[in-house]
Amino acid sequence: MKMKRNEVDHVVQLVGDERIDYLLTNEEMKIIQSPTVFSFSLDALLLAYFTYVPIRRGKILDLCSGNGVIPLLLSRRSQAHITGVEIQERLWDMACRSVQMNDKHEQIEMMHADLKELQPAIGHSSFDVVTCNPPYFKSPKATEHNDNVHLTIARHEVYCTLEDVIKACKLHVRPGGKVALVHRPERFVDLIVLFRKYGIEPKRVQFVYSKQGREANAVLIEGTRDGKVGMHMLPPLYIYQEDGTYTKEAEDIIHGA
Amino acid sequence: MKMKRNEVDHVVQLVGDERIDYLLTNEEMKIIQSPTVFSFSLDALLLAYFTYVPIRRGKILDLCSGNGVIPLLLSRRSQAHITGVEIQERLWDMACRSVQMNDKHEQIEMMHADLKELQPAIGHSSFDVVTCNPPYFKSPKATEHNDNVHLTIARHEVYCTLEDVIKACKLHVRPGGKVALVHRPERFVDLIVLFRKYGIEPKRVQFVYSKQGREANAVLIEGTRDGKVGMHMLPPLYIYQEDGTYTKEAEDIIHGA
Repeated sequence: MKMKRNEVDHVVQLVGDERIDYLLTNEEMKIIQSPTVFSFSLDALLLAYFTYVPIRRGKILDLCSGNGVIPLLLSRRSQAHITGVEIQERLWDMACRSVQMNDKHEQIEMMHADLKELQPAIGHSSFDVVTCNPPYFKSPKATEHNDNVHLTIARHEVYCTLEDVIKACKLHVRPGGKVALVHRPERFVDLIVLFRKYGIEPKRVQFVYSKQGREANAVLIEGTRDGKVGMHMLPPLYIYQEDGTYTKEAEDIIHGA
Repeated sequence: MKMKRNEVDHVVQLVGDERIDYLLTNEEMKIIQSPTVFSFSLDALLLAYFTYVPIRRGKILDLCSGNGVIPLLLSRRSQAHITGVEIQERLWDMACRSVQMNDKHEQIEMMHADLKELQPAIGHSSFDVVTCNPPYFKSPKATEHNDNVHLTIARHEVYCTLEDVIKACKLHVRPGGKVALVHRPERFVDLIVLFRKYGIEPKRVQFVYSKQGREANAVLIEGTRDGKVGMHMLPPLYIYQEDGTYTKEAEDIIHGA
């Protein structure tokens, strides 16, 4: 697959049903979204809040970047150079325009590429952190598959499996560097087994619960390449209070506090 | 190692510094304990509360039984036949006397045996449930090792590793049967990887937190032999409230509600 890098172009144009949304409720940054192509989810905000980032320098790689939501969010927390990788040209193009719109083109580079074939372009073992909010579902049902190709690819393992993702994380993170993912609890066992298989030792895990007393509906996991055994299970993160309003923690994440 | 089975003897005698404690605050059952040999921990209560048990019939195996705390607790929830296995003769003897004292000798059989060598005596693949509260720590430090041999064996992987335990669980549980363990969060990754390795698919996990806002200090895990992939992360279990008193959930478990 040919790789394209974003070029600086300060005129942001919207295509089709695209709209410009705030990235966070603090209205600091904007992002181009489309209900039929890609809109970011709460899980992206959670991953960007959860992951370790180097503050002043270093290199961050974000795989399955979609419309660039995680690179944009991480650029608020870190001055590191951020590379975002997205396989769908349409989403990559949205991400490039969002990067420009926020004047982040010096810090964030969006690549249109397949995460399985990144090595010739970016080498290996050079990133301090690799993040990914991958497709969650194994094989798309026939109906979903035909429905909307953009959403299907973002949600289902069409172009890459979880193993492809973790293999790419391992290949590009430096020894001692961090890999952080968000996923569904149902796939947690697979995550753990694959992290171990590729020498990324799980170190910090946080489960996300919609409300108290329910089962978890997301999991955040961070591992260290060649790290020592010893996992910390962080306090659970609740999104809503009993009355349906956001908890303080969730509000802070959504606001970008 | 020679296997001994408990014989019915209704006179319960205490040895050395042993004392008789209530198993639960409902004062329904008693157990023989000793501060220098073995006293059960909250983790045993948590495992006995957490694990699935067949109600009316079936067979349960408890490995690393210590003073018989888990067989005794499970006999309150199930009429299944329960086999408890303990490698330390001194603890096995305490367990036998506690079983007698509670008139449970028809339901509970305590075996003095090494879990790695159970097959000739109990066959394989025949239990509906296998439970275990194993030694938590990898290699004892020299000082701990010499301190107290009974406590060292109960807490450290002297006679069996976590892999030995899970291998034995796999060998003795029937296909479709359950395996339930309690352990430290630091070993959770090992647990998951070993469950998978031995064909026990993790299905239900619950982390136990001393208080809200802290990291977890215990984990309960239940898997199904040859089960389908798909893990449920249960709501966290908190032991103490902010004021240091037990939560309702912990109080119910300790009371035997």
